[in-house]
Amino acid sequence: MTTLPEFKQAPHKLLVIPGPIEVSDEVLYANARPSNSHVAPDFVQVFGDCIRRFVISTAGQPFLISGSGTLGWDQVAANLIQPGENALVLHTGYFGDSFQDCLETYGAKVDQIKADIGGVVSQEAIESALKSKKYRLLTFTHVDTSTAVLSDAKAIAETVRRVSPDTLVILDGVCSVASEELRMDAWGIDVVLTASQKGLGVPPGLSILVASPKAIKARVFESRTAPVGSYYASWKKWLPIMKAYESGKAAYFATPPVNLVYAYHASLTRITKEAPSLEERFKLHRAASKEVKDTAAELGLKQLPLDPAYAATGMTALYFPNGVAATDVLPKLSANGIIAAGGLHAAIKEKYFRIGHMGITVVDGQRGDIQVITKALKDVFAKL
Amino acid sequence: MTTLPEFKQAPHKLLVIPGPIEVSDEVLYANARPSNSHVAPDFVQVFGDCIRRFVISTAGQPFLISGSGTLGWDQVAANLIQPGENALVLHTGYFGDSFQDCLETYGAKVDQIKADIGGVVSQEAIESALKSKKYRLLTFTHVDTSTAVLSDAKAIAETVRRVSPDTLVILDGVCSVASEELRMDAWGIDVVLTASQKGLGVPPGLSILVASPKAIKARVFESRTAPVGSYYASWKKWLPIMKAYESGKAAYFATPPVNLVYAYHASLTRITKEAPSLEERFKLHRAASKEVKDTAAELGLKQLPLDPAYAATGMTALYFPNGVAATDVLPKLSANGIIAAGGLHAAIKEKYFRIGHMGITVVDGQRGDIQVITKALKDVFAKL
Repeated sequence: MTTLPEFKQAPHKLLVIPGPIEVSDEVLYANARPSNSHVAPDFVQVFGDCIRRFVISTAGQPFLISGSGTLGWDQVAANLIQPGENALVLHTGYFGDSFQDCLETYGAKVDQIKADIGGVVSQEAIESALKSKKYRLLTFTHVDTSTAVLSDAKAIAETVRRVSPDTLVILDGVCSVASEELRMDAWGIDVVLTASQKGLGVPPGLSILVASPKAIKARVFESRTAPVGSYYASWKKWLPIMKAYESGKAAYFATPPVNLVYAYHASLTRITKEAPSLEERFKLHRAASKEVKDTAAELGLKQLPLDPAYAATGMTALYFPNGVAATDVLPKLSANGIIAAGGLHAAIKEKYFRIGHMGITVVDGQRGDIQVITKALKDVFAKL
Repeated sequence: MTTLPEFKQAPHKLLVIPGPIEVSDEVLYANARPSNSHVAPDFVQVFGDCIRRFVISTAGQPFLISGSGTLGWDQVAANLIQPGENALVLHTGYFGDSFQDCLETYGAKVDQIKADIGGVVSQEAIESALKSKKYRLLTFTHVDTSTAVLSDAKAIAETVRRVSPDTLVILDGVCSVASEELRMDAWGIDVVLTASQKGLGVPPGLSILVASPKAIKARVFESRTAPVGSYYASWKKWLPIMKAYESGKAAYFATPPVNLVYAYHASLTRITKEAPSLEERFKLHRAASKEVKDTAAELGLKQLPLDPAYAATGMTALYFPNGVAATDVLPKLSANGIIAAGGLHAAIKEKYFRIGHMGITVVDGQRGDIQVITKALKDVFAKL
């Protein structure tokens, strides 16, 4: 890679919604590289690197497809479950309902276990559901962006493996990958799906999914009797493409988002090859999260997750104090230099707000982003 | 919009494959703008502009979705036709087979009328097929990128309107929009689908589709009895989102590709508001096409389209002379500064190559791209 020229993105307010997040100059410059052919040797090399070098799994098969994170749900629903089969959705916020909706679109029969707002689903409830019926797959949202609730991926996978080993474990990691600890291979997770614009630090537009080769082989190619329910999201179409680029050859099914793949490559290179290590990266996220959450507590703000043990480290969701509205707070935070997000969970939408602290905002301490966030919180809430 | 700073893309060989095409500094700079929220007021304005201001139709409803051009087929197949209904696919190259495959994935029963390689389907054949059976929709590839064959969109739409007025006319314009003359409203075309990386001059990653509101209302919301077969491509999900942004409000179904939308906006602004006009634009494409094709003819190279009357103006497909192989030509063209594309049509893949001449390569005469192309052709083929 050539040295980064003097490219600096335009001055702007700090973007601390829980995605899209702040993106480095280096990644943005890669997004502005001259147009290139999707079959050019240098692109083949870069795209191949992106497939070979995925951060959260060494055994898994990545699928990198032009699309929003949402497209990951279609990939799961269209490929891994057949019409009439059962799926179990653990609900910890907005995204559980949407994943259910997607699964049902492709004909799955969905049961949901719904946590209280701010809560998680207990292992007992999961165990009991798994014993009541044969489920082809179970899905959960690792961090639900609407509530900042972090589910215990390791414990969920353990419960499924123990009680119903044939049930696939599907982790929606859109808001967790590269900011929350996640060991796909070691914990026995079959699919992790995510997107480019959160912990991975790239503009939105890339649906990123990793599936265990065993799950793909068994469920898509061997035991599946119904045809795959989607064309654009079909792994039968995409697997040969990923395999080709992985082995250094071009192949065509649909044109990949060339510039965004270069941008993703720039970010991935930084995450996987350079300091900080992945361990250090998670540690920095925990430390930044503590700083924001401690500041909020000092200001008397209550977190949405009911128990600190399952609050995300990549984002914070905070209730407004009594009598204070979103329209009071968000514009003031903006006047203090940070763009935060309003509520998303329909039942309490107007009652809380959200701050993301992922990627370079956390990892590149020299930026001072966390200090900007805590200062803005203090300045705004001390005066309310 | 602020003035473009001194951003210049890195030096590179001229990319003249039939997409992705060369992208302007201005568009690339927009692709490298600082990260922004998908619900920020300035993004809402820009995304709204992109929806309101589509170049080829004033009446149509645009859908701008993160994805490859291929996703447009899923949108048509999942929303506009029900399982068991008939579709008629006009085949003028590689993309006819793929569209058929996509339609069948969602349960349509597909008949194909296949032109000879380099030929078009006759109006008589279309009329006869439409009289034999009730078709819910007919699809054709306006310019098939694999053959450079340009179908007569106006005549096809006229035939369908006369013989089978209820049949929807679906135009695959991935390789034609913004470079070939196309009048969706006046010609009575129900759907035009395209992508960002060809005539529209933006990096790949945006699926762009325009549907007549009448078709959407009748086929998706009123007469449809089967559920829409896709989640990510469902217009029931996307229509409220497009309507919201169109009217200046944010809404959420899946995160749009924010930076790419800014890039698209920059290109669209140039295409719709500034010189040259759309008329002038088509004229420049015809002139550039003539220059490339005349040069090829002088060099004794034979075009793939059987009749010049239906050769695309945005690209040229040329057979290699006898005894000359792709491996002889493409590296030499590259050594002469242009990246051209090999063959794509399976039956003759090794026998021909393709050159794109769309977008700024054609419209911005100061670049001298067409002269670079013709000079490279002369230098390479004169020596073979």
